[in-house]
Amino acid sequence: MRSEERVLGIVETARGKRPRFRDELVTMAHGAGGKASQTLIEGLLAPAFESAALDELGDAGKVEAEGLGLAVTTDSFVVRPIRFPGGSIGELAVNGTVNDLAVSGARPLALTVSLVLEEGLEADALRAEVEAMAAAASAAGVEVVSGDTKVVERGHCDSMYVCTSGLGRLDPRAALATGSIEPGDRVLVSGPVGAHGTAIMLARDELGLDAEIRSDTRPLWPAVEAMLEAAGPALRCMRDATRGGVASALNELARASGVAVEVGESAVPVLPEVAAAAELLGIDPMYIANEGVLVAFVAPEGAEPALAALRAAPGCEAAAQIGEVRAEPPGMVMVDTAFGGRRVMDLLAGDPLPRIC
Amino acid sequence: MRSEERVLGIVETARGKRPRFRDELVTMAHGAGGKASQTLIEGLLAPAFESAALDELGDAGKVEAEGLGLAVTTDSFVVRPIRFPGGSIGELAVNGTVNDLAVSGARPLALTVSLVLEEGLEADALRAEVEAMAAAASAAGVEVVSGDTKVVERGHCDSMYVCTSGLGRLDPRAALATGSIEPGDRVLVSGPVGAHGTAIMLARDELGLDAEIRSDTRPLWPAVEAMLEAAGPALRCMRDATRGGVASALNELARASGVAVEVGESAVPVLPEVAAAAELLGIDPMYIANEGVLVAFVAPEGAEPALAALRAAPGCEAAAQIGEVRAEPPGMVMVDTAFGGRRVMDLLAGDPLPRIC
Repeated sequence: MRSEERVLGIVETARGKRPRFRDELVTMAHGAGGKASQTLIEGLLAPAFESAALDELGDAGKVEAEGLGLAVTTDSFVVRPIRFPGGSIGELAVNGTVNDLAVSGARPLALTVSLVLEEGLEADALRAEVEAMAAAASAAGVEVVSGDTKVVERGHCDSMYVCTSGLGRLDPRAALATGSIEPGDRVLVSGPVGAHGTAIMLARDELGLDAEIRSDTRPLWPAVEAMLEAAGPALRCMRDATRGGVASALNELARASGVAVEVGESAVPVLPEVAAAAELLGIDPMYIANEGVLVAFVAPEGAEPALAALRAAPGCEAAAQIGEVRAEPPGMVMVDTAFGGRRVMDLLAGDPLPRIC
Repeated sequence: MRSEERVLGIVETARGKRPRFRDELVTMAHGAGGKASQTLIEGLLAPAFESAALDELGDAGKVEAEGLGLAVTTDSFVVRPIRFPGGSIGELAVNGTVNDLAVSGARPLALTVSLVLEEGLEADALRAEVEAMAAAASAAGVEVVSGDTKVVERGHCDSMYVCTSGLGRLDPRAALATGSIEPGDRVLVSGPVGAHGTAIMLARDELGLDAEIRSDTRPLWPAVEAMLEAAGPALRCMRDATRGGVASALNELARASGVAVEVGESAVPVLPEVAAAAELLGIDPMYIANEGVLVAFVAPEGAEPALAALRAAPGCEAAAQIGEVRAEPPGMVMVDTAFGGRRVMDLLAGDPLPRIC
């Protein structure tokens, strides 16, 4: 149906044209995982570092050391408040880094932790986060092997910022590449979407809501390993659906692969209390950050075994197939709404939920 | 001369008793690299993470992946101001991480960069730092393979904080271990001390001085590689003399090895303008941070070749032998002053120069 030539042309439009970074000032939107973040990364950071690994815009960069395939990744965490139902900044930092390695097909081996602490922070609050990090690292089966601590004057940081970096070993079963996504591939999500971001908003008490929503922070390597075992090379690509939610992860992959993604809105798992809070917030749960939810693209023959494997992994019991890859319109995500309509699900332009991780 | 038993007993006092972290609040001193930092690391972080690699308290943690010896390290940079004579936060972040790998005997392979940006930061200031990082990475022969950007509201960060992490390959020629330091070993320093911290203080214009002092920020892998080639296993141990200066690096190593270090004050290279500024500041240059100076402990037979190799490395022309390892008093650093006196050079208790890196 599609002319190869035409597709190539369109792919070039979708992938080849780098956005230019033209903003004069940094805004909250540059940290939100939407359009402004993309412009900053693709228009300034990736070109400056001229890095092939960065160019892939994956969750981790790949490094070969004497024939051994490794992955490295880094993330800063500036979530406010630092403790919230279901987790805290320390647990988030460890799981976030473990998950960036996992969705890149790498078994987490080692972490580093760098803390920026605010002068006057209570030692007990620090102790609690250090213990949360140690517990999360232990639960994920990974060791913290190096660290750093800086202190800044009162007011120049909110309690603490945490930067975790991770080293992983690429799993030989993984043959993941954004470029390998093809029309017909199935799109899976590993659990109910939007819980983390909603939990943070409620913890800030900006809504006056009393719902008990817990963050979904969890390590995803067990889920990834189960899928690798079940689907092998049929597993095309994964993304950790953090900032910007599932919508942003799907948009990034659609754009990077020059394909379209068609999502069935009614197939997307959302906890009822999250759906209710999101409605009050006026935000689509698909745009709300998760900290323990991945999206996976799987070739048709691998979709059922991968989904079954996912559902058997801890915390992924509600995993679902939410859509399918199409050829047209390339680089875009379309949603079939519950009411029979169809609309574009674009990248976010602003930042409705700042500092959720 | 020394009884093995007695030495073991003393070594245990110097090494075995972990300081307890009893402070109720985090203070600037916890980030200064002196006694308070040590208490935080040894009394809280290392025990919580139960990490053998962290326990070594080296500049990088060691990881073995399928027989391959790797090193990983991380550092946050919160220097104020972000640009200063001789460098900037971006260059500092790259060189600092490269140097932590280098002094651990690891050839730098890959870096990650995580930015915490302040809302309202000028894009040109960000662009300048990204370019500084790219240039420093290129000069150090290392690729930036992964990154992250967060934005926090105006006032919750000073322009930007930068966290760099690094992956290195342990050089097979390196057999570095703090425990291998022996009485009789020579202590080398790779260049004039105290320039970086002094440059930062002058850049803050808190002194009203007009001296032109430039930061010593530079990558040290070429110097390390030259020493490994020249001295091989005679090279016992190295430290990057950053926060807390050469004095803190020597104290850490003396304590970790249960030996004494005797330093000849007049042998320590100090630029005259740095000595003058330090005198005005009332700080011993040995306590002032460097960002391109290492200390190395070398067995007697390797000291001359190592020093010659150092002096041939870029930026290390003024390298010098500044002292020798003694058996007594274990865990301590003694200074023979220029006036014929002798005094203890202890770890700093406070933080005379906050946020110099």
